[in-house]
Formats: sequence, C-alpha cells, structure tokens
Amino acid sequence: MDQNQNLEVKSTDLDGLLDAQEDESSKWYTKTIIQSELADYSPVKGCMVIRPYGYALWENIQRVLDKMIKDTGHQNAYFPLFIPESFLNKEKQHVEGFAPECAVVTHGGGKKLEEPLIVRPTSETIINHMFAKWVQSWRDLPLLINQWANVVRWELRTRMFLRTTEFLWQEGHTAHASEAEARHESLKMLDVYKTLAQDYLALPVLTGEKTENERFAGAVNTYAIEAIMRDGKALQAGTSHYLGQNFAKAFEIQFQNADGELEFAYQTSWGVSTRLIGAIILGHGDTKGLILPPKIAPIQVVIVPIYKNDNEKTTVLETCHNLIKNLKEKIRIHLDDRDNYTPGFKFNHWEQRGIPLRLNIGPKDVANNCVEMVLRIDGQKIPKTPLADLENILIGYLEKEQQRLFDRALSYRQENTHTVKSIAELSELIAKSPCFIQAYWQGDSHNEQQIKQDTGATIRVLMDSNVIGKCILTGKETSKIAIFAKAY
Amino acid sequence: MDQNQNLEVKSTDLDGLLDAQEDESSKWYTKTIIQSELADYSPVKGCMVIRPYGYALWENIQRVLDKMIKDTGHQNAYFPLFIPESFLNKEKQHVEGFAPECAVVTHGGGKKLEEPLIVRPTSETIINHMFAKWVQSWRDLPLLINQWANVVRWELRTRMFLRTTEFLWQEGHTAHASEAEARHESLKMLDVYKTLAQDYLALPVLTGEKTENERFAGAVNTYAIEAIMRDGKALQAGTSHYLGQNFAKAFEIQFQNADGELEFAYQTSWGVSTRLIGAIILGHGDTKGLILPPKIAPIQVVIVPIYKNDNEKTTVLETCHNLIKNLKEKIRIHLDDRDNYTPGFKFNHWEQRGIPLRLNIGPKDVANNCVEMVLRIDGQKIPKTPLADLENILIGYLEKEQQRLFDRALSYRQENTHTVKSIAELSELIAKSPCFIQAYWQGDSHNEQQIKQDTGATIRVLMDSNVIGKCILTGKETSKIAIFAKAY
Repeated sequence: MDQNQNLEVKSTDLDGLLDAQEDESSKWYTKTIIQSELADYSPVKGCMVIRPYGYALWENIQRVLDKMIKDTGHQNAYFPLFIPESFLNKEKQHVEGFAPECAVVTHGGGKKLEEPLIVRPTSETIINHMFAKWVQSWRDLPLLINQWANVVRWELRTRMFLRTTEFLWQEGHTAHASEAEARHESLKMLDVYKTLAQDYLALPVLTGEKTENERFAGAVNTYAIEAIMRDGKALQAGTSHYLGQNFAKAFEIQFQNADGELEFAYQTSWGVSTRLIGAIILGHGDTKGLILPPKIAPIQVVIVPIYKNDNEKTTVLETCHNLIKNLKEKIRIHLDDRDNYTPGFKFNHWEQRGIPLRLNIGPKDVANNCVEMVLRIDGQKIPKTPLADLENILIGYLEKEQQRLFDRALSYRQENTHTVKSIAELSELIAKSPCFIQAYWQGDSHNEQQIKQDTGATIRVLMDSNVIGKCILTGKETSKIAIFAKAY
Repeated sequence: MDQNQNLEVKSTDLDGLLDAQEDESSKWYTKTIIQSELADYSPVKGCMVIRPYGYALWENIQRVLDKMIKDTGHQNAYFPLFIPESFLNKEKQHVEGFAPECAVVTHGGGKKLEEPLIVRPTSETIINHMFAKWVQSWRDLPLLINQWANVVRWELRTRMFLRTTEFLWQEGHTAHASEAEARHESLKMLDVYKTLAQDYLALPVLTGEKTENERFAGAVNTYAIEAIMRDGKALQAGTSHYLGQNFAKAFEIQFQNADGELEFAYQTSWGVSTRLIGAIILGHGDTKGLILPPKIAPIQVVIVPIYKNDNEKTTVLETCHNLIKNLKEKIRIHLDDRDNYTPGFKFNHWEQRGIPLRLNIGPKDVANNCVEMVLRIDGQKIPKTPLADLENILIGYLEKEQQRLFDRALSYRQENTHTVKSIAELSELIAKSPCFIQAYWQGDSHNEQQIKQDTGATIRVLMDSNVIGKCILTGKETSKIAIFAKAY
C-alpha cells in the first residue's frame, strides 16, 4: 500500500458540506457526534451520554468560563436539585414558562411525598429563597453566585447537545442594590459569553436583546449571543437576563438601603450549557466531521507514525516518543501508535474528531529531521516542518488556526447576512436558503409570530443602530435593527 | 480598646473540644458549619445548600482528586441522572440495597410516565448498560470511566455533609478482561483515596475490607478508607468495590477474549463524596471552629490590619496591599480590610473558618519590617516574622502546618486505639468513650450484629496481620484483625 496516497487530502469542499447539511443536516449532525464519540444515545428518552471525548471538550470550556466568572467577582456554590412545587408557583410568568416542562418526583423512600418535588429546570426559585435569608442590608450586596449543575426540561423533540431533557450548564444568579448595577451586570456577563464564544470557541456572535416572544419566563429583559451555523441557521448560544425586582418581590429579597429604607433587590441570571458543543459542531464542522478550535480541543496535535517494516517502526516510534516527551508540557498532543490500523484509517479517524494539527512521520522525515504537518481546516500540508523548532512552530500554528477558524466563520456570516427593505424580500431570501436577514423593525409580537408562520424565521436579536431607518413592516422610522433567521 | 489583648490567643484546649463534642457533638458540628458559612439549611427536606466557602473547599478537593484519577488512566464522562426503574431490578442485591432509598419521577411534561424513572442513587446500572454497548473485544478493555455528579438517596436521618438526600461525588466505573486486573484496580483506587485523605486532607486512614454487613449492594468485596474523628468515632471516607462479574452478567457486558471466547467482564466501582468535608470538620476542628489543611484551604493565609487612626491605617494598608500583590501568585491569601469590624472580631471570624495562618500587621510591625504570624492549629504566635523573606517563610509554614495537622490526627488515633483480647474488654472500653478497638476476629455477620446491638460498635475494616492471634469471640486462631468503633 502506498502510504503517501493517503496524505493527499483535498481542500475541504464547502459546497459539499452545505449540500450535506441542507439535504441531510440531521443525519450529518448525529453521525458526526456518534462517530467522533462525543456522545451516545442513552436508554432514557431525551437524555444522552456524554462520552469522554465530548466531556473533555466540556471540561475545557468549563475551565475557561469558570475562570472568567471568578475573575468578574462571582463565587461558585451548590443548591438542591429538587424544588418544592409551591416555589415554582411564586413567580407567575416563571411557572407559566416552566411548568409544562417539569419532571416531578412524587415518591421518595418508598412513600408518596406530601408535596411533589420538581427536578430543577433552572434554579431562580430555590436560589432566591436562600438569597432572601442571606440579604438584610445593602452591605450584603451585591451577591454574586454561580452554579455548575445539571437541569431537566421535559422536551418533546430532542437533539443531542442542542436540546436534551437533561443538560449540563452554569447558571449565574446575582442580587444588587440598584437597577443600574444589575443592568450593568447582565450586560457584563453577556460580554463574558461573547468573549467565550469568539475568543475560545472561534464562533462570531451577534449580541442583542430578545423580543418578548423569546424572553426568559420572569425576566424584564433577555439578552443573547447568537451564532450562525454552517447551514445558515441561527443558534442561541447563551442568555443573560435582567430580572428587575420580579423574583425579589416573589421571594421577598429585601434589604435596608444606605438611607435605612427597605427595598427589593434588583437581579440578574445568566447561563450557557452543553449546547455550546452543538454550536461548535454545527458552526465549524465539514463533510469529514468535526473541526475543533485549538484553544479548547482535547487533543490539539496528533502524531501518526508511518512505517513499512519493523526497522522503520523502531526508528519512527523513537522519534515520536521523543516528540511527545518534549511537547506534552505545553501542547495537548497524542501519539496514535495503534498497530492494527493503517495510517489512512488514522487520518480519517482524527479528521473526523477535528484535531487541529496532524503530524505524519515516516522514516524519510526522521532522516531529514522534519515532519509533515497537515491542517484540519482545509487539509493544507506543510511538508518538511523542522523538528528542531517544532514546539514554537506548533504553538504558532495553533494560534493561527484558531484565528483562521474564527475568520472563516465570520466571512461565512458576512456572506450569508442580507439587508432587506421589505417583508417580501425577507420571505424570498429565507425561502431560498437559510441565512441571516437584517432589517429595521418596529413590529410587535403578533407581527413576529405571523412572519414565523409564513417563513419559519424568528427575530434572533434586536440591536440598536446609529442610523434611523424604516421598519420593513410598518414603514415607521426606527433605530432598532432585527436579525431574522431560522433557528435551531 | 487594646488591640493587643485580642492577640492573646490561648493554645487550643483539646479537652474543651472533646467535652464539647461528647456533650453537644451535634450542636457543635452544625454550629461550626453554619457559622463558618460552609453550608446552610435548605427548604428541601434532607438537602443542604453548599455555600461559596464550602464549595471552594470541595473544588480544591476535586482538583486534587481529578488529577489523580486522570493520572491513573481514567477519563471523565457523564451519564443520565434518570435510570429506568427496570434497570435497578436487573442486579438482585443491588435493587435490595437501593430500592428503599430511591426518589422516583412519575410525571414528566405534564403526563404520567409509562415507566417511572429513578433519580440515580449510584450509576452502576445505567453505566453498565452503556458498557455492554461499547465492549465487544478484549481490545476495548480496560474501560476506565469516572463521573462527577449529584446522586440522591432518600435518608431518614440526615446530617449536613455526612448524610444528605442529595450529595455530590465522583463515581469510578471500570471493566477489565481479567479478575486479577480488576482486583488490582479496586485496590489501586483505594490507595488513591488513602493518598487524598492523608497527603491532602491530613487525615490518617486505615484501609481494609468491609464485612458482609457493610458491603456495597452488588459487590463481591468492598474496601474502605476509615478515619477517626476528634470525638473518637469512625467515619467511612471512601469506598472501592470489586464487583466481580455480577453487573457484567446482569447487563451482559461480554467480550471476546484473546482466544476468541466470549467472557463476561470483571468490574470495579469506587467513590468519594462531599462527606469528605464532614470528615475534615470532625477530624480536625476544635472549640473555635474549623481547622483546614493548608493544601486544600480556600484561603491559606489571612491578613488582619491593625490601626488606631487614619494615619496608621494608610501606612498599614499600603504594606498589606503590597503583600497581597507579591504573594497572591503562589499563596491563596486574603486581606480582611473591612472597616466596620474590630481586629478581635476578625481574629475570631477567621479562626472559626480554619485559615491555617494569620498575619497581624500593626504600625510597629510596618516600622520594623515584620509581621506577627499566628498558627491556627494551636494559636502559637511567631512574632517579628521578617517581611523580606515572607513568601518562603509562609510556604514553609504551610507545609509544616499540613504535616503537623496530620501528625496531630495520627497521635490522636494512636492514643485512642486499644487492642483487646475479649468481648468484655471491648464493651467496657467502647462504653467509656468512643475509640478504635483492634481485635483478632473470625466471627460472622450475626456475631457482628450482636456486638453492634450490645455496644453500638461495628467493624469498620478487616485487615490482614502478619501475626496469628485468637479471635475475641470464638478463640480460634486467625490472621484477621478487625477495627471496631462507633461510626458516623
């Protein structure tokens, strides 16, 4: 077998990807997850098993985000999984939003419970019950808490990572002495999410406010980061809510302000979940499988040794082991020394798993003190990469590939964002193929519902423009720009 | 007010502690947890809220253990919270052990479920269902998986950290191609737990096998690490199980061995939980509150500035801020610059929270380029500690205090471990005050139950001795030594 034939990796065919995703988008998505061993089906309806490769990706995301959450002054804590049913009923909008999605524990220890317990769909109610106990004076504020936890929302149509009955997330919950401070907090955390998405996941995101239709149940304002996927659809990747005094009033979180008066606290909550893994898959992947951003890839560099006989094997593997030894401190590197697979099989295997850089090492490379490097994004080959300075070269390429992945996604969003001046234009473009539509907007919830019914598109975020324009529906002047898209 | 009066910290009065724990042990325990803000009561029966200080302690334990688990070749993954009721019934002993403790979800999304779901009390069943899917050949083995998760066991009598309805833990689950390898794994992980307890939590532990009475439901052998608390009672701090082929047969985890024959896998499981925090509280605390081991203390060093006027305040705080700036990279250090509390209040505050080292800095200290250091273990004062070499001095003392805490606990165990030659002697000693009793033992479950009924003591672990002795019950010769104690 000619090993070199397998090295002929063609540039990623984006058209191929788009066709694949348009025609068989779901199949591609599921196949990619299963084959790359990110996750697996579970025997529990709507729940998935996150396999080690997927969980390592989640741990890397967690590590980055946890640091940002702590650096902005928040502390982690842990609150009960179960919430008394009566708690959920205390905030009217909240219960209306979540009651239909609840899993209910009715029996414990062999007995029927006096009051059923809800498995948390989100923890505002139980956390705010505790906040009421902890907050007395303005000196106790702000209270800046974060929780890493599992939550359960009974979903009818589930999809791995994107919408599962149980999922993992972090939920921040804060209480403040003033509206201004709480509003500032909700936007600050939106910005933290934007940094996470753009600088680490290489996903450019639009930030803005959600319309009433998509607002969190119980919030005054919901803000979101919204990313475009490689099939032109939108994916909400994180939300931050300004809750006003809604929950403070429901749970009696009162504090004595500096003037000695009793006041309800002003609050926020914000969260991102394992859905981010879905965003990475759909936002970067191609026909070959995953493409992972170097900064969070569980394996950043994989080495595939190439040899034809035992002599060559000894020489090549010795070089490989030395490389691992020298590089493993600074780079997440893996040597695929499995004996029972061909190099070609291994190339596919690691491409499918989205490893940013691959090093192919054969006897000639060893003799020449070099290695062949292959870039996952487009299959580009960098032959004769010198072993002498490999650490710096790899670190440089990991940074470059991180940036290139972001730039590629940004270009894709720019190419697939269209400005329209009429509803007709919007409908026509959306019908042609999923994309982002930018339009001046002053409509209401009902109008938005109508557009959703007609085109399948919803408003993903509302943004403020410096320039006034005419609403595509009413023709009235407005500074609000809406991004319409079909969404996951 | 004379600030110096507050510096007169007397040596820890151990007798005081023991009295306090013997007479009002539970009160002391709960008061310590609530006042040091490790945790709080929750509105859900049997569940607690882990507050930021307690969660930071848990995160430090997690960080250490997670690294050890990964260094021994295991990978983290995540499996569903819910387990179909039928799964629990597949392993006979397992269901008998856990069914009475289960929380049951009967409704989801507003509808009654066809099959009730159990909130995982432990994940053997669902994980082994997945293992059966993933394991085909000996090449797929060993399968070395760990999960960090919340679990729920419906407990009648709960106690914060020690026994709560919901708790946080890690559960390792492994499958192997041979009995020898699986047995080796279960003992290896027991050893990892011993290292965690001794080298990080400063808790000396005995390791050994559990008797049938205390065996994990479904295991062939259960091993445990067992620590002595400052009141003489025992606390089981971690368990590791050799499961044989019990679960493999129940869940059909079969593999083709190297000879092409179909064989059931050999398995282990092992776990430690937030109970470790209870062990730290009860294993080290004194009348003043917590004493935390430096290696896992969320705050290792606290600085309390002492001043009488604004001039002094400016001078002292400037030095404090410089110290924080220079030390924070290598030491978890905190400056208590609260204006509305006296130094005396702050001393108590941080002693209660168990901070290993306290630095008191007044204007004279600043003038003399030194600081007064106070050791939490015994209140010992190290006056005139030079600022010039403070980083190294602190690092040295943190190591020393870690060792001293372990040594103190070890001495305590030695002083409170008695070897007996008869049941009468055992009963008499246990009745006098809780302690560890060491005795040759060849009795059975029934005998052990009888001793429990008569004395309140159970066998915490069985160990192998090099020397043969006579069983205190039967008089028969045996090499098995049992450790009897009253247990948490």
